[in-house]
Amino acid sequence: MEKESNTKRIMLTVSYDGTNYCGWAYQDNVPTIEGELNKAISLLCNENITVIGASRTDAGVHAYGNIAVFDTISTIPPERFVYALNHQLPEDIRIIKSQKVASDFHPRHCNTIKTYEYHILNADIADPIRRNYIYNFGMKLDVEVMNEAAGYFIGEHDFTSFCNIESQAVSHVRRVYDVNVAKKGSEIIITVVGAGFLYNMVRIMAGTLIQIGRGKGKPEDIAKMIEAKDRRKAGPTAPAKGLYLIKYQFPDGIPES
Amino acid sequence: MEKESNTKRIMLTVSYDGTNYCGWAYQDNVPTIEGELNKAISLLCNENITVIGASRTDAGVHAYGNIAVFDTISTIPPERFVYALNHQLPEDIRIIKSQKVASDFHPRHCNTIKTYEYHILNADIADPIRRNYIYNFGMKLDVEVMNEAAGYFIGEHDFTSFCNIESQAVSHVRRVYDVNVAKKGSEIIITVVGAGFLYNMVRIMAGTLIQIGRGKGKPEDIAKMIEAKDRRKAGPTAPAKGLYLIKYQFPDGIPES
Repeated sequence: MEKESNTKRIMLTVSYDGTNYCGWAYQDNVPTIEGELNKAISLLCNENITVIGASRTDAGVHAYGNIAVFDTISTIPPERFVYALNHQLPEDIRIIKSQKVASDFHPRHCNTIKTYEYHILNADIADPIRRNYIYNFGMKLDVEVMNEAAGYFIGEHDFTSFCNIESQAVSHVRRVYDVNVAKKGSEIIITVVGAGFLYNMVRIMAGTLIQIGRGKGKPEDIAKMIEAKDRRKAGPTAPAKGLYLIKYQFPDGIPES
Repeated sequence: MEKESNTKRIMLTVSYDGTNYCGWAYQDNVPTIEGELNKAISLLCNENITVIGASRTDAGVHAYGNIAVFDTISTIPPERFVYALNHQLPEDIRIIKSQKVASDFHPRHCNTIKTYEYHILNADIADPIRRNYIYNFGMKLDVEVMNEAAGYFIGEHDFTSFCNIESQAVSHVRRVYDVNVAKKGSEIIITVVGAGFLYNMVRIMAGTLIQIGRGKGKPEDIAKMIEAKDRRKAGPTAPAKGLYLIKYQFPDGIPES
């Protein structure tokens, strides 16, 4: 029989404005999402707690549904962490859900479906109110051409051309389920759904789609870029501020004990 | 014959994020929208220039179309002020239009139709990304009841009950053309159109509609509140961050010379 333990693993769904943070991953002496979570949870539980994050978003990238887990001996009911932590956290980070999960559940070592959105404002003059929340691109973009190009990303490919050269990933093969480009007024939203992503992958996909949308290249060039396995063959990395980690889905479910 | 003059009057349409400003009106030693405009225009034209604003929005209030005019002897073509000023101004203030107007055109001494929007997020947990751009109200709001209540504001009334007691306006009679309350997902938008507004008027209207929407009072109470001509009879002043000055219209046209 397994030894009983008072330790439980809590999973948090986290929304944040990435503008004022040096990304998710903890670093000494600079504000990070992970750092703020560790501080708030440790204070609340009176333990020294470090979260495990699902996605280490870059500086300036926003999230509506990143995932973090942590272990605690606290007797606070799992679902109450939402309110208790929101009381401690700065206003630009909010916990939107908290739940108990199995003690061996690890958000990076399980099947997940991740949805990202990249937001572009296709306008002559940037919107001052959304200056940190959307990438303003002044030249006219052809959304239909972008959407056709997007289709070439779908499937399992080696995405070396769409990966920051500093990536330390062992394999660059990833499965993309869907990429869609839609226009809403003067806003263009690129939605990307996949099983996993490489360092800067969605931002390089967005930067490449923008290039094709302004007439530099054809939709079918995406296939050649993927084929090349060479970062220099793809387009530029689009700015962080347009990127949103929308949600994580767990197709095999989330084990509760 | 009138003496020829090299001075021309330029009208600017101005968008801004009010979060980091102590409102529109110039004050010494604090950031204001007017102060930033005066500084940028004076530097660009190499003259000592003070703008005349149409609406002195409060600290934290946002605008997509406030109006300012100024006089200059600069030879910069009127429509080029958009680009030249956006180069000088901070990113949270953008000029979206510049045009020459008659030298006696004054944006507060002419017929105007102003459109405001008040944005409410009716959600348990605030959106961290929009924390400065929408008022989060956690209790359930009945939008149909709010919209019915809104109808009582329409017409020419003495709006003393819906005016900050520090107002120095001689008359509190104002004409409201339309008030509409609409739901878009979990967002509620109150649109108010009128010929002129008193100090805090739209925010007090919004705060009162919220009270009625959560069941404190009936739609027809608005008529009684107006009748009372007593600020204490209306609801609270809703927070500045939910308010947007959307646009100015000039029903008699804008005289060009």
